[in-house]
Amino acid sequence: MFSIPTIRATAHAALSAQLQHKLNQLTKPVGALGELERVALRIGLMQQSTSPQIREPQLVIFAGDHGLARLGASAYPQDVTWQMVLNMLGGGAAANVLARQHGIGFAVLDCGVAHNFDAHPKLIQGKIAHGTQASSGGTAMSAAQCDEALALGARTVTALPGNCFIAGEMGIGNTAAASLMTARLLQLPIAECTGRGTGLDDAGLARKIALLELALKAHSATEAKAVLAAFGGFEIAAMTGAYLQAASQARMILVDGFICTAALLVAARLNPAVLDYCIFTHRSSEPGHLALLKALHAKPLLELGMRLGEGSGALAAYPLVQSALLLLQEMASFESAGVSGQTA
Amino acid sequence: MFSIPTIRATAHAALSAQLQHKLNQLTKPVGALGELERVALRIGLMQQSTSPQIREPQLVIFAGDHGLARLGASAYPQDVTWQMVLNMLGGGAAANVLARQHGIGFAVLDCGVAHNFDAHPKLIQGKIAHGTQASSGGTAMSAAQCDEALALGARTVTALPGNCFIAGEMGIGNTAAASLMTARLLQLPIAECTGRGTGLDDAGLARKIALLELALKAHSATEAKAVLAAFGGFEIAAMTGAYLQAASQARMILVDGFICTAALLVAARLNPAVLDYCIFTHRSSEPGHLALLKALHAKPLLELGMRLGEGSGALAAYPLVQSALLLLQEMASFESAGVSGQTA
Repeated sequence: MFSIPTIRATAHAALSAQLQHKLNQLTKPVGALGELERVALRIGLMQQSTSPQIREPQLVIFAGDHGLARLGASAYPQDVTWQMVLNMLGGGAAANVLARQHGIGFAVLDCGVAHNFDAHPKLIQGKIAHGTQASSGGTAMSAAQCDEALALGARTVTALPGNCFIAGEMGIGNTAAASLMTARLLQLPIAECTGRGTGLDDAGLARKIALLELALKAHSATEAKAVLAAFGGFEIAAMTGAYLQAASQARMILVDGFICTAALLVAARLNPAVLDYCIFTHRSSEPGHLALLKALHAKPLLELGMRLGEGSGALAAYPLVQSALLLLQEMASFESAGVSGQTA
Repeated sequence: MFSIPTIRATAHAALSAQLQHKLNQLTKPVGALGELERVALRIGLMQQSTSPQIREPQLVIFAGDHGLARLGASAYPQDVTWQMVLNMLGGGAAANVLARQHGIGFAVLDCGVAHNFDAHPKLIQGKIAHGTQASSGGTAMSAAQCDEALALGARTVTALPGNCFIAGEMGIGNTAAASLMTARLLQLPIAECTGRGTGLDDAGLARKIALLELALKAHSATEAKAVLAAFGGFEIAAMTGAYLQAASQARMILVDGFICTAALLVAARLNPAVLDYCIFTHRSSEPGHLALLKALHAKPLLELGMRLGEGSGALAAYPLVQSALLLLQEMASFESAGVSGQTA
């Protein structure tokens, strides 16, 4: 069973003032590093330190299949999920390239792919079932499976080294699941929360919206965990559990795109303090993501029109987070460098 | 004397199609890497290669002083220019931290700081004068000095290794110079092109605008080089020459913020093909920068509210450019990874 972890809220007026003072003493005009200063300050609060650091950052790709994909919710066949998992284990996916570039640890967590994998050093076997049920019929998963997935995510994070957690996801059909969760949890029309996913054309998008309308009508759930079970995916539920656990361990969380943010919204409904540990890294071109970011009052670091998943946006933004901490740590102060202050 | 270098335009339909094909074969939905795909394609065209690479990236900080600074155009005293140059030579500025983070070569070019520096391995001595004249009186520099500065920038780039050039700048008062150049070259009201620079308050901003109104009225020049001489700075003119030379050698140029983009606008008026080699890296919070970006049809990679100069925005964005090329180079293709293609 999964019990919601306790999370320490990061608000701390004295430490916040100390961090701001340290930032203001650096040889630059006050605030001239923009968002990077805010990132440094927030991570200082997460780590309760005026010298916050990243140690052994970790990417986990949460993989799972979706019943709705078999009904045409995606531009790609469901087999692409397991094929892409193998591609990731082979090092050939975008996430691999970016994780290597930045020295980020990498693993794939099978939460519920409709395929049996051989053992692999980078694969964590956590399969709950061979994909979810189509939510246009019954619930995507049972309440027990949902709890199992939440616990799987939490357990996986607990076993990770380091203090920086990045979730990525792979699951054909999971933008459909995220759209449903977003529409229900934020009480928005499904069309406002639904995009082309991996690349549907106009007709495909219209079919997807019609299918999601049906699914939405099939369930009355509004409570976060019930919505997750009704519409979500095993990889989404596992990410929800992972985010809660990461925050409870005071790890910084780099939040990727639409599907990750949908998982995070559920986490935030279960324990809002999880948001204190989140750095939003990119804004996806999926329309549902914008709605989620607005609801969470989040302004991501990047807006590059990316819509790949796999944690790719968070990975792309990672060096900016690193920059923020290095600047706080390594820049000279006006005093130490003998530079004059502001006159006007 | 400075003669405008010849620059090869990069347009090449066949190579462009080859690069696009290569991008589309990678294991991701078509276009899912957003701006990163466009960056990879453009650098491929610059290098006339389907496997473009960054070799030995170089940052040069162009430093110079400004007559207008002595009349109150900045929140900081003019001495901060040379003090910050020493800070940079000592490794304590934001630019140093970011250049170290990304393994980027570093030098300071003294184009016209009002201070005599001792020799230093990272300092290139190119001083044209001890600061410009205030453009509210005569021209900031003579036509001969302007040519000298253009040639200095070009010569400095020629001596650099590698194929990636980043210009940063340091010069108290240089947002004022950039505002004047922007207002005149784009025929905009000065108030639309003027911001708080390093941090003027409301009264300071009003004084700055009044001062710049005076300067603008003192000169009728509209031709790019004449505008540069009337309102610019030695470091700005040197950057203009540097950009033209970098493009003529097919180096990729990572364009930083407001002052760099003002220098680039002059370069583009002298030889528009320079723009083919430019990656715009960040949007500064200076209002004049937005006007310049619009005029150049540029959409920078980052918008983080930075307003520091020193090339800091370009340095922050550097790993994204690197990511774009690594993704093109290292990702598996659908065929090589055995992943199914799109069905809908």
